[in-house]
Amino acid sequence: MSITQYTAYTTLLQKAADLNYASALLSWDQEIYMPVKGAAARGRQLATLASQAHEILTSNELGNLLTELTNNEELNDTEKANVRLSLEDYTRNKKLSPAFIEELSMLQSEGFNAWVDARKKNDYSLFAHVLARMITIKRRQAELFGYKDHAYDALLDEYEKGATVAMLDPVFAGIKSQLPLLHKTIKNKTQVSNDSFQLNFPKQQQWDFSIDVLKSMGFDFEAGRQDYSEHPFTTSFSSNDVRLTTRVDEQNYASMLWSCIHEGGHGLYEQGLPEDQYGLPLGSPASLGIHESQSRLWENCIGRGHDFWTYFYPKLQTYFPDQLANISLEEWYHAMNKVEPSLIRTEADEVTYHFHVLIRYELEKGLIEGSMDPADLPAKWNELYQQYLGISPKDDKTGVLQDVHWSHGMFGYFPTYSLGSFYAAQFFHQAQKDIEQLDVQIRNGDTSQLLAWLREKVHRHGRRYTSEELCKQITGEGLNAAHFIKYIQNKYSSIYGISNW
Amino acid sequence: MSITQYTAYTTLLQKAADLNYASALLSWDQEIYMPVKGAAARGRQLATLASQAHEILTSNELGNLLTELTNNEELNDTEKANVRLSLEDYTRNKKLSPAFIEELSMLQSEGFNAWVDARKKNDYSLFAHVLARMITIKRRQAELFGYKDHAYDALLDEYEKGATVAMLDPVFAGIKSQLPLLHKTIKNKTQVSNDSFQLNFPKQQQWDFSIDVLKSMGFDFEAGRQDYSEHPFTTSFSSNDVRLTTRVDEQNYASMLWSCIHEGGHGLYEQGLPEDQYGLPLGSPASLGIHESQSRLWENCIGRGHDFWTYFYPKLQTYFPDQLANISLEEWYHAMNKVEPSLIRTEADEVTYHFHVLIRYELEKGLIEGSMDPADLPAKWNELYQQYLGISPKDDKTGVLQDVHWSHGMFGYFPTYSLGSFYAAQFFHQAQKDIEQLDVQIRNGDTSQLLAWLREKVHRHGRRYTSEELCKQITGEGLNAAHFIKYIQNKYSSIYGISNW
Repeated sequence: MSITQYTAYTTLLQKAADLNYASALLSWDQEIYMPVKGAAARGRQLATLASQAHEILTSNELGNLLTELTNNEELNDTEKANVRLSLEDYTRNKKLSPAFIEELSMLQSEGFNAWVDARKKNDYSLFAHVLARMITIKRRQAELFGYKDHAYDALLDEYEKGATVAMLDPVFAGIKSQLPLLHKTIKNKTQVSNDSFQLNFPKQQQWDFSIDVLKSMGFDFEAGRQDYSEHPFTTSFSSNDVRLTTRVDEQNYASMLWSCIHEGGHGLYEQGLPEDQYGLPLGSPASLGIHESQSRLWENCIGRGHDFWTYFYPKLQTYFPDQLANISLEEWYHAMNKVEPSLIRTEADEVTYHFHVLIRYELEKGLIEGSMDPADLPAKWNELYQQYLGISPKDDKTGVLQDVHWSHGMFGYFPTYSLGSFYAAQFFHQAQKDIEQLDVQIRNGDTSQLLAWLREKVHRHGRRYTSEELCKQITGEGLNAAHFIKYIQNKYSSIYGISNW
Repeated sequence: MSITQYTAYTTLLQKAADLNYASALLSWDQEIYMPVKGAAARGRQLATLASQAHEILTSNELGNLLTELTNNEELNDTEKANVRLSLEDYTRNKKLSPAFIEELSMLQSEGFNAWVDARKKNDYSLFAHVLARMITIKRRQAELFGYKDHAYDALLDEYEKGATVAMLDPVFAGIKSQLPLLHKTIKNKTQVSNDSFQLNFPKQQQWDFSIDVLKSMGFDFEAGRQDYSEHPFTTSFSSNDVRLTTRVDEQNYASMLWSCIHEGGHGLYEQGLPEDQYGLPLGSPASLGIHESQSRLWENCIGRGHDFWTYFYPKLQTYFPDQLANISLEEWYHAMNKVEPSLIRTEADEVTYHFHVLIRYELEKGLIEGSMDPADLPAKWNELYQQYLGISPKDDKTGVLQDVHWSHGMFGYFPTYSLGSFYAAQFFHQAQKDIEQLDVQIRNGDTSQLLAWLREKVHRHGRRYTSEELCKQITGEGLNAAHFIKYIQNKYSSIYGISNW
């Protein structure tokens, strides 16, 4: 009987997953291959798939099954975990009425279009009115979800279960107190040059090298692929079909190189999710922060590391013999790790990146708690950039309009980027302890033990543990940004010749 | 009230269309970009989408709406036509139980896998057992659908509404009596060479030229695209998103050239379907025969015509200056129209092609009416090839196992290929009468009036008329294969120097 009920539950969940994965393919195609005029029909097809999935996920049939399964002691631990997490999702899904979802979804379309238009015309005022309405509806959403201390907590929870202002404030306070000092120390040293990345790197060779790197990382091209898109992203339609996208700029190799390794890290996580848990919580990623920890670990801890390039730089030189003939490994390594305040988050280095996130975090809190008026956003934005980075944008496009997130109502998303870097540093620190001579392995181009470690420690668990639980289990402590600070100090000491921080 | 009901009906139909178009994208991706390991999950996603669509299309809600709308005199002609056709579809859909569809669908998977395996091992006996079961289930299906004279009629009707053995027998009898004579006359003449197509034609230039040709035909690349696949096909996700695929063989230009123009013809039909009838019968193609008439008209009547190449051959020479330097327009034109019996249907010329279809038509009739044993199929196949084409396959792969259709249970499909050619010749004959100096226009690379004529006469009507009704409306008579015979005689007279047939 319980088997029958559990099977009935997984059948429903997996049917919804089929629909959602189909949506993901429609979105993937929309970004990469869809002809422009296809947009309207694609929009309605996506809406239908979403509503069919939502119908299943909020059905009384599912609710009843979950209630009955919750107290079923015959289930094994995996089954219990799936049921527990599905009930949480179900309860959350039921809090939003179809009418509310419809309203939000329409405002998201409107918001995105307004943002695109405002960006094109470089004029925040064209976006302000819809952003104000978006904030209002997100506050309503927070009320519907419910929260204990701060409305923003309810929104954070959607992206990073368990994350709250009470948890993030101290994390960011630590960063806020230490990072400026680190940054100042670096600024006072002789600066490094990143000119080596600005030569002409033909597209095809960039592509070929990226495939070599992804294969070496362990990305399975029989269970995934890479394509070009305007904005790099990763999506999947099962752990056996994971799609990476990248972009290429022949005059700036950094554009492709980091996006490729970053998305590769996301892709490895997706490929590592347990296949037999298809469509179930334990077959899904733990959280955005953990997802980002995988991409950042590969991009930064590995991909911007000296060990990695000890192996790969000579290979790279065979792809670009003319361009790199007179550039040494050290120059190349320094070039990729140049620290310099800049206006655009996605192009920031590992140190200044977190000021960008911090600024958004502070602004979001203010907007959601109502202490800030959306009309004042550009002024406040520029003020914070001046304060944290010593520069301020000359226009809205390079300022407050640079990110798409708010147009979609994604408040609470940005902090997960920093959490990802912090978890990455903490996990990598642990991996170095757990895996003997990991540095030597990486210098030999062998990251297979690292990947096996990540599979074992992170990937195979799906959503079984929260980020915080996972972190404790792997490293013996909860999130501790001191590991990140330490990682930064270690790394930049050699690059900038700093013996004393 | 009637408006509300009609809207409720279109909402249901269009929701099912959203799901079916999503399936079409999943299938497109499966053929072109999906990594191999993605197959299992893709299979279940496709099954879920199909069952969700089928649920809507066989729901009592839809049935009740259609019954009530059928007698509603307030609807306009377009609305009435949609309701009438949807009721036909609904009635047909309801004749097959979910259990029957499940059984058929499983047998299709089994059949396809058995066929792939049998083809690989070049051994029909590995396919025979599942084919026998497939024939049994298709006969059951014919009984469920119901028919007047011949069980095969019920299956034909699925692909070509209104087509019956009583209608096709005389059409094929005409072909059977006349085509062998034409073929014999051609065989007695000096043969032409197609060596010009077997030079080395680099992939990229083939691709670039194909895009030029498609643009010139009027294919809108803002509402469609072309990709590579193993077997060329056309699919669409709305009239604003039509996907063509092609293949390339650098040693045989014919492989890409004809598939590209052929699929382009299909694609123009899809792009010409009325956008405001999305998901409704009047937004869908009339029949397979009419669809094929569009691809054949462009491929054969235009694409293998002297007028077309008068314009395009000098352009082609700029793409392949070395290869085509010493080949004249006449040689090129003759090469593409070489008539020669061959074993593979998809590679046949315009004359011998119809023997291939005729053979399949006769075999299918025998299998479905039960006068033929599937075990005897290879022997019978080879006998008919000897009889009609004077050659017989040396093995199953180039014989009875060459087509995928029967493995999917697609009995009644093959005749639509010939119908397509016959309709194409008849339509083109009419277009030449209706459009002043069409030949001159084509010689100037201008097919815009032809496309406008096809849009007006065929595309915009969707399924409003049956093939036969459409044909009468356009040409003043029903299908008349004499136009095809005449077209063949006209064309090959000059190529083979025949003054008297």
